[in-house]
Amino acid sequence: MSATAEKQFDQGLVNTIAAETQMSFIDGERGVLEYVGIDIDSLARNSTFEETTFLLWNGRLPNRAELSEFEAELRAEYEVPAGVLDMIKAIPADASPMHTVQTLVSALSLYDSEADDPSAEANIRKALRLVAKTPTLIAAFDRHRKGLEVIAPDSKRSVASNFLYMLRGEEPTETMVRALDVCLVLHADHGFNASTFTSLVVISTLSDLYSACSAAVGALRGPLHGGANEGVMVMLNEIGDMSKVDDFMKGKLDRKEKIMGFGHRVYKAYDPRATYLKTFAEGLARDTGNLPLYEMSKRIEEIMNEAVAAKGIFPNVDFYSATTYWSLGLDLDLFTPMFALSRMSGWTGHCIEYLKDNKLIRPGAAYVGPHEVPYVAMGDR
Amino acid sequence: MSATAEKQFDQGLVNTIAAETQMSFIDGERGVLEYVGIDIDSLARNSTFEETTFLLWNGRLPNRAELSEFEAELRAEYEVPAGVLDMIKAIPADASPMHTVQTLVSALSLYDSEADDPSAEANIRKALRLVAKTPTLIAAFDRHRKGLEVIAPDSKRSVASNFLYMLRGEEPTETMVRALDVCLVLHADHGFNASTFTSLVVISTLSDLYSACSAAVGALRGPLHGGANEGVMVMLNEIGDMSKVDDFMKGKLDRKEKIMGFGHRVYKAYDPRATYLKTFAEGLARDTGNLPLYEMSKRIEEIMNEAVAAKGIFPNVDFYSATTYWSLGLDLDLFTPMFALSRMSGWTGHCIEYLKDNKLIRPGAAYVGPHEVPYVAMGDR
Repeated sequence: MSATAEKQFDQGLVNTIAAETQMSFIDGERGVLEYVGIDIDSLARNSTFEETTFLLWNGRLPNRAELSEFEAELRAEYEVPAGVLDMIKAIPADASPMHTVQTLVSALSLYDSEADDPSAEANIRKALRLVAKTPTLIAAFDRHRKGLEVIAPDSKRSVASNFLYMLRGEEPTETMVRALDVCLVLHADHGFNASTFTSLVVISTLSDLYSACSAAVGALRGPLHGGANEGVMVMLNEIGDMSKVDDFMKGKLDRKEKIMGFGHRVYKAYDPRATYLKTFAEGLARDTGNLPLYEMSKRIEEIMNEAVAAKGIFPNVDFYSATTYWSLGLDLDLFTPMFALSRMSGWTGHCIEYLKDNKLIRPGAAYVGPHEVPYVAMGDR
Repeated sequence: MSATAEKQFDQGLVNTIAAETQMSFIDGERGVLEYVGIDIDSLARNSTFEETTFLLWNGRLPNRAELSEFEAELRAEYEVPAGVLDMIKAIPADASPMHTVQTLVSALSLYDSEADDPSAEANIRKALRLVAKTPTLIAAFDRHRKGLEVIAPDSKRSVASNFLYMLRGEEPTETMVRALDVCLVLHADHGFNASTFTSLVVISTLSDLYSACSAAVGALRGPLHGGANEGVMVMLNEIGDMSKVDDFMKGKLDRKEKIMGFGHRVYKAYDPRATYLKTFAEGLARDTGNLPLYEMSKRIEEIMNEAVAAKGIFPNVDFYSATTYWSLGLDLDLFTPMFALSRMSGWTGHCIEYLKDNKLIRPGAAYVGPHEVPYVAMGDR
């Protein structure tokens, strides 16, 4: 990496390092993802979303007392302001959940007297609120749009358990809670992806965390970013059942079409987030009566493994999180909001980290239009 | 500018060109700003916000018929959905207008069946809606928070005239309409500033214009970006009257403190947007009984001119737009929303332009934390 002062044209910023971070490390060639040095597979197997969030924000794992206190602080913030609940209940039932989340994350600021307090202490409180309240926003909107009563959060539950409880109105099984928790750990952070980078550009103007995280939701919903995870489930539903997998895949491969859930801009090896999720998905699928879905996924992976693994195309995190979310009973259009719920941890952490050495993000533009064009009066055009 | 593949560390992206554009050109050293080659001063003197928006979007000035049609299309979109109006009426009166605008711009998507239609035609319609409806959102919220009846837009009026009419509930004078129109022309575009770049990062995921422009509002509100223009008025109010200007300025200069409205990250010469605004501000101030304010501004500029012009510190566009907005009767916290209203034209234009040659914006991060840290079980921490 060099520090030349010469201006470099780099559309997409693939050759540009935008800042330093101590949160996550990605080595796409080797298939490594670490959060503060701990490999993602260990965290998926052993940690929780709450502990992982503490790790990302504080640069180390908490001890027992710290974790309890952190969980208590989060749980105390599950409820959303009454004004925001009223707003949710007035949103059209056919509105897109991601647009709804972007709107509501911004709306939280209207009820937070600390919204524009730039102090480090206030930022930590706002980060806690954003992580704690986003699940409530999503669950409340999903209940509202289905004509079901909105269920208040339960501050005795973990983030994953509470979300499933608010969403379904019944006690989730331990397997379900654990499956969601694993997905939340796996999606919590991933370097300077487009949504995280969006939050950094916003916060770099010394704007606030609500503005930055609402903006990030807007980026996440794009099909080239978080919006891709619905596609895997759409494909599985399109195939229908196991007997049609081979023909479907042969057709796709013959026509050289993209298979949803395979390949990643960053990873050229097995996506390290998919490893544990894959073994986990089987149990969840069995528990929830979705084993055929899991078996279809497995067969697709086998076919892809023979056909394209040599080219560095492997299943990515979306491939198995899609069937996991489906098994949990989530509607297709809640898959990307789940990503937002989890990544809120990374967005807020990166914003707070960036503010410690803030620099306004303002790239140059290569102007390729005309110069010194006269303003011609209307009568002479 | 080079195209080396070596990764370059460039926090702030000052040495990075993020894309090509045909919309605006800035030469900070010479104090030049052109929209599609036409210098900003000519546009301020001769054009309107509507014509300027057409220019930015189409790369040329419209003929008479085109301008009439464009104005008619915009005017047909002034009204906001009833659901959004209801939402405005439920927002706390003490909410920040910029957070409100970010929330509401995103909320517009909830009522637009074309929100997620990625076609070029739908994007142009959505851009029109965003430019047409943002003034209505701002005026409606300002009326609501003051306990005044919300005034419906008048589709026989220009954007500037309609905004002042909706805000004040009375016929604005021609001077007032013209003053606001000039401000809107001056702020419509300015290269890849942080808010425009935010909109590009969002749209680069193939997200949509509502998501991108709501996100841009979040960046604009930061004190290092659009949030600065309130500061000029705060300073003028703090000084109080003409007799105290010299002492105030001497104190500031002796203590080497920053003077609001002077200097610009890009311009090292006179901000070309300030030239016409300055001559215009005098007439408006006289008309609206704010001449003392103008005279204070002029005196501050004289003192600054003697003290720091040699260092390339000149009044920027904020310096005279602040007194202009104040003379128009706008509350301090509506200054930045006016900037958003105008820049909506640039944000939408840049997003549509970027989509013609889209590339996901995802910079690298320099990871500076530890590696291969073992996950230590809770009992062993």
